[in-house]
Amino acid sequence: MLGLMQDRPLLIQQLIEHAALNHGDTEIVSRTVEGPIHRYTYKEARDRSRKVAEALLALGVKPGDRIGTLAWNGYRHFELYYGISGMGAVCHTINPRLFPEQIVYIVNHAEDQILFVDINLLPLVEKLQSQFKTVRHIVAMTDRAHVPADVKIPNLLVYEDLIADKPGTYDWPEFDENTASSLCYTSGTTGNPKGVLYSHRSTVLHAYGAALPDTLGLSARSVVLPVVPMFHVNAWGLPYTAAMVGAKIVFPGVALDGASLYELFEKEKVVFTAGVPTVWLALIQYMQANKLKLSTVRYAVIGGSAAPPAMIETFDKEYGVEVLHAWGMSEMSPLGTVNHPKEKHAALPAAEQLAVRLKQGRPPYGVDMKIVDDSGKELPRDGKAFGDLLVRGPWITSGYFKGEGGDVLRDGWFPTGDVATLDPDGYMQITDRSKDVIKSGGEWISSIDLENAAMAHPGVAEAAVIGVAHPKWDERPLLIVQKKPDAQLDKAALIEFLSGKVAKWWLPDDVQFVEAIPHTATGKILKTRLREDFKGYKLPTA
Amino acid sequence: MLGLMQDRPLLIQQLIEHAALNHGDTEIVSRTVEGPIHRYTYKEARDRSRKVAEALLALGVKPGDRIGTLAWNGYRHFELYYGISGMGAVCHTINPRLFPEQIVYIVNHAEDQILFVDINLLPLVEKLQSQFKTVRHIVAMTDRAHVPADVKIPNLLVYEDLIADKPGTYDWPEFDENTASSLCYTSGTTGNPKGVLYSHRSTVLHAYGAALPDTLGLSARSVVLPVVPMFHVNAWGLPYTAAMVGAKIVFPGVALDGASLYELFEKEKVVFTAGVPTVWLALIQYMQANKLKLSTVRYAVIGGSAAPPAMIETFDKEYGVEVLHAWGMSEMSPLGTVNHPKEKHAALPAAEQLAVRLKQGRPPYGVDMKIVDDSGKELPRDGKAFGDLLVRGPWITSGYFKGEGGDVLRDGWFPTGDVATLDPDGYMQITDRSKDVIKSGGEWISSIDLENAAMAHPGVAEAAVIGVAHPKWDERPLLIVQKKPDAQLDKAALIEFLSGKVAKWWLPDDVQFVEAIPHTATGKILKTRLREDFKGYKLPTA
Repeated sequence: MLGLMQDRPLLIQQLIEHAALNHGDTEIVSRTVEGPIHRYTYKEARDRSRKVAEALLALGVKPGDRIGTLAWNGYRHFELYYGISGMGAVCHTINPRLFPEQIVYIVNHAEDQILFVDINLLPLVEKLQSQFKTVRHIVAMTDRAHVPADVKIPNLLVYEDLIADKPGTYDWPEFDENTASSLCYTSGTTGNPKGVLYSHRSTVLHAYGAALPDTLGLSARSVVLPVVPMFHVNAWGLPYTAAMVGAKIVFPGVALDGASLYELFEKEKVVFTAGVPTVWLALIQYMQANKLKLSTVRYAVIGGSAAPPAMIETFDKEYGVEVLHAWGMSEMSPLGTVNHPKEKHAALPAAEQLAVRLKQGRPPYGVDMKIVDDSGKELPRDGKAFGDLLVRGPWITSGYFKGEGGDVLRDGWFPTGDVATLDPDGYMQITDRSKDVIKSGGEWISSIDLENAAMAHPGVAEAAVIGVAHPKWDERPLLIVQKKPDAQLDKAALIEFLSGKVAKWWLPDDVQFVEAIPHTATGKILKTRLREDFKGYKLPTA
Repeated sequence: MLGLMQDRPLLIQQLIEHAALNHGDTEIVSRTVEGPIHRYTYKEARDRSRKVAEALLALGVKPGDRIGTLAWNGYRHFELYYGISGMGAVCHTINPRLFPEQIVYIVNHAEDQILFVDINLLPLVEKLQSQFKTVRHIVAMTDRAHVPADVKIPNLLVYEDLIADKPGTYDWPEFDENTASSLCYTSGTTGNPKGVLYSHRSTVLHAYGAALPDTLGLSARSVVLPVVPMFHVNAWGLPYTAAMVGAKIVFPGVALDGASLYELFEKEKVVFTAGVPTVWLALIQYMQANKLKLSTVRYAVIGGSAAPPAMIETFDKEYGVEVLHAWGMSEMSPLGTVNHPKEKHAALPAAEQLAVRLKQGRPPYGVDMKIVDDSGKELPRDGKAFGDLLVRGPWITSGYFKGEGGDVLRDGWFPTGDVATLDPDGYMQITDRSKDVIKSGGEWISSIDLENAAMAHPGVAEAAVIGVAHPKWDERPLLIVQKKPDAQLDKAALIEFLSGKVAKWWLPDDVQFVEAIPHTATGKILKTRLREDFKGYKLPTA
C-alpha cells in the first residue's frame, strides 16, 4: 500500500525558486574575471537563470544535452548551474587546470553541445577548439564590451547578448527526479577521466544532507565563500545548499591568493568557507606575514585531502576558526563525512580531542559506510581495524558515464579506494589510499600516517611516502621530503624525529630529498609519478 | 537521460540503523507509565525495534496492515514506530483523548489488526473492545509483572513476552519509498476524523527538512524532549528527526504537568523541547509559583496554535529560552513553517523584531506556499494582502485515507483552511482560519488578531471571537471572554482597551463573559461549539 502524499519530484530548479521567494533580497557577490565586484540578489539570479534556460532553448538545446562550462566561481556560472539543469539539460563543469589533452578528451566524451567560457580561458579554448567534435557554439561569459579583441574563435557568442532579449518568465518543466542534472569528470591519477553523472534527486538530497547542523550547518544567516571551484564536484554542492537555505554567497572568481581571499572575507563578512589544504596554507602564510586576523569567519571546511593537524590548530588558536574536517569524492556528490565533535568529547583531554578532530568525521544520514578486508568480509567498527572503505546511498554513484570502468559496485556498495577505520561513534578515519597502503610482511602500513608524522617536523615543507619492493617484506616505506627553504635536515635526523611517533616497524627504510613533491590538478600528491621516479629504487637495508 | 546515482529508497528503518551505527551509546530516556525512569541507547532501541518487527511477523502481520497504538511518549512506542513501519506495515497512532466514539470510528475505519496499548489506557480499551471490528490482538505495552490484575481483555498479549524470545537480527526489507508508513487521523472540529497516510519518503524528507538549522536545528549535541504526544502527528516528526541526527531523546510519558516536565528538563539536561501553548502555560505558572529557572533548555517549539506574544517574551526574558514559533498541520507531516529571524532583523527596534517573531515563520525547502483570493487568483507576497493559504510539497497530503473528503487538492495544491499573509522574506502569518474569518461588509476581519489583542488585557484568561449575523454588514465580531479568577472586567473596559490596538471597524460589537472557553482534544478553541452556543445571538448594535 502506498502512502497518500503529494508526488512532488525533487528538482534543482525548485532550489533557486525557493531562494527567490523566501530570500529574494539576499546577496550573491562575485569577484568577476573582468575585474570589478558584482553584486545582486537571489531574485535576480533566479530571473537570469530563467533567461539562460530560454537562451538554451533558442539555441536548440534538448533535454539530456550536455552543456560544458570552463569557468571560475562567479554569478554567471551560478546561473548556468540552474539554467542548464533546470531546463532538463546536463551541466558539465570542466576543470581548466587539467592537461589540455584531458580537456579535449572529456569535451568529446561528454559530447558537449555548447561551451560556456570565462574570458581568461578563451585563449585555452582557442587552442583546443579544432579538436572539439560536438561543440556547436562557444559562449564568452561576459558582455560585448569585455570580449577580448584578439580572440580567434569563429562565431563566438556572448552571454549577455544571448540573454538580453529573453523574457525571464520561463516556467520550469517538471520531470522525473532521477533525470541527469550535471556531470563531473574525476581527475584520476591513472587512465582517462571518468564522468560522474548526478541527478536532480541526488543533488537535492545531498543539499539536505549538507545543510544539516552536523554537516555544514548552513542557514539564512550564513555568509558562504566557496573557495573550492565550481568545476570541482560542483563546489562541494555549496551553490545548491546555499540556495536551499538562503545563505549569502560570495564567489571569489579567479583570484584565490591569500590577499584576495582575505579581502573578500573581511569586506563581505564571510562566516563560512570551504577549500583544499593548499589554499588555506597560502591564506595562513599571508595573514601571518601581514599580522592580520579574521573578524567574521567562523567555519572553514577542509577537504580534498586530509587536513594537517597543525592547520587545524592554527585556525583554531590563532584565528578563532573552527575547522570542519571533511571527506568525500566526486563519486559521492561529494560529501561523505564531516567532523563535528560530540558533546561527550568536550570532557576529554586536549590531545584526545585533537585525535577525534583528526578523523574525517561522521556521515550524515544518507551515507552508509562499512570497511572490509581483502575477501570482502566486514571488519569491526572499533576504531582500530582498517580495511577498504565501501559506501552506499542516494547521492553516491552507481557507475560512470557511458559505462566507463564497467560495473564498479560491489554488492551495491561503491569502493572508495580508501583504507579507513570506523569507530563506534560513527567517526571514519582514512588511513591510506587502497593503492598507497604499504603491505609489509602481510601487515598494512599507512603511508598517510607516516607523511603526517614527517610533516610535523619544522624543516619539512611536504612529505610523501611510497612503498618500494623489498626482498623479504614485499614492500617497505620510502620517505620522500621537500625541505623548507634553508632548512638543515638529513635522513638520520628525520628517522630520529619519527622514532616513538610511529610503530618501530613502520619507520621508513630510507629518506630521499626532492626539489618539489609533484601534485595532481586538484592538489593531491601525485604518487604515481613518485613511484615512477623511484622505480627500481634499492633500499639500503634490502 | 537519467543520472547514474544509486537507486536507494528513503526508508524509515534506515533512520534507526543510522542512529545505532553512529550514535550507538546515545541515550533515550523515558518516564514510564509504570513509574520509574527507563534509559537505554539507540543501539538497544534498534535491536528491540527489530524484535518488534519479528514479533509482528510471528503474529501474521502483512505489509500494509494497520497496527494501532494507544500510547504516550515512551521507548516502547518509539520501538513500535520503527518496528511497524520498518517491516512494511502502517503505524496508526491513536489519540486517547478523543471521544470514545471517535476512537471506535477510527480503529474500525483504519481496520487496525493489532492494538498496542499503554497500561493506563487498558480500561478505555476494555470498554470499547466489543465495538472494534478488525482487531485480532490487543497488546499491553509492559511486562508481565505490570499487567493490571483486574483488566478484562480476553487473550491480552504482553509486549515484553512477545519480543522476549525474538533474535533481534531482523534484516529490514527494502521496498518502494512511497510505501505507506504511518497513519494519523485529524481531529477535525466537524464530521468524522479523516486519516492522513504518510509514506517512508515523506517521513524521511520531512525529517531532513525539520533538522535544518533554520527549522529545528537538531544535531548529535541536542537533547530533545517532545512534549507533543506521539499520537499528535508523530510528535511533529521528532522521533524520526532525532534518530536522523543522533540527538538524545527524553520521553515524558503521561505526566505533562509543570512539575514533572521541569524535573525532566533539569535532570536530563534537555536543550530542545516542543509542545502546544497550553502545556507551556502550565510550565511557566509552575516555575513562577516556585521561583525556578531553566538551566539547559534553550529552544522551545510552540505549535498547534499561535504562540501568544506574552509567552514568547516570558520564555525569552525570564528563562532565556528562544521560542521557535512553528506552524503546520497533520496533512503536512506536520511542519510547514518555523520562525527564525534573519540577520537583517537584528538591527530592527525591539517592537519590530517582536512583530517578525509573531509571524508563523518561513517554510523549509520542500514546502511551497501561496495565498489566493476567493476566485483562486494568487495574491501578492507583500505581508499585507491576506488570502486562503495553499501548500504543496513531498510531505504534504494528496488526499485522505480511503478517499474520504474526495479530491481535496486545488490544481495540485492543498488548501490549509488558514487565511494568511506572506511577506517578501518568506514569512507567513496566519490571520485566521478560513471558516473563522469574519466577513464584514465585503472586507475580512481576523478573529485571531482580535483574540490576541484581547488576551493582552491582564484580566483576560482566554478570549475567542466569532462572527455573528448582522443585517447590514453580513457578519460582525462577538468577543467571548473567560476572565482570570477575581478579575474585575466589563464590556466597556474591554472595548476601551482594544481601541487604538485594532482598526476601528474591527472593534467587537459586543462582549460576552463565559465560565470556560471550550477546547478540542488538541487544545484548540472549539469555535463550532461557541457558534452553536451563540446561535441566533442578537448584537446590541444590530
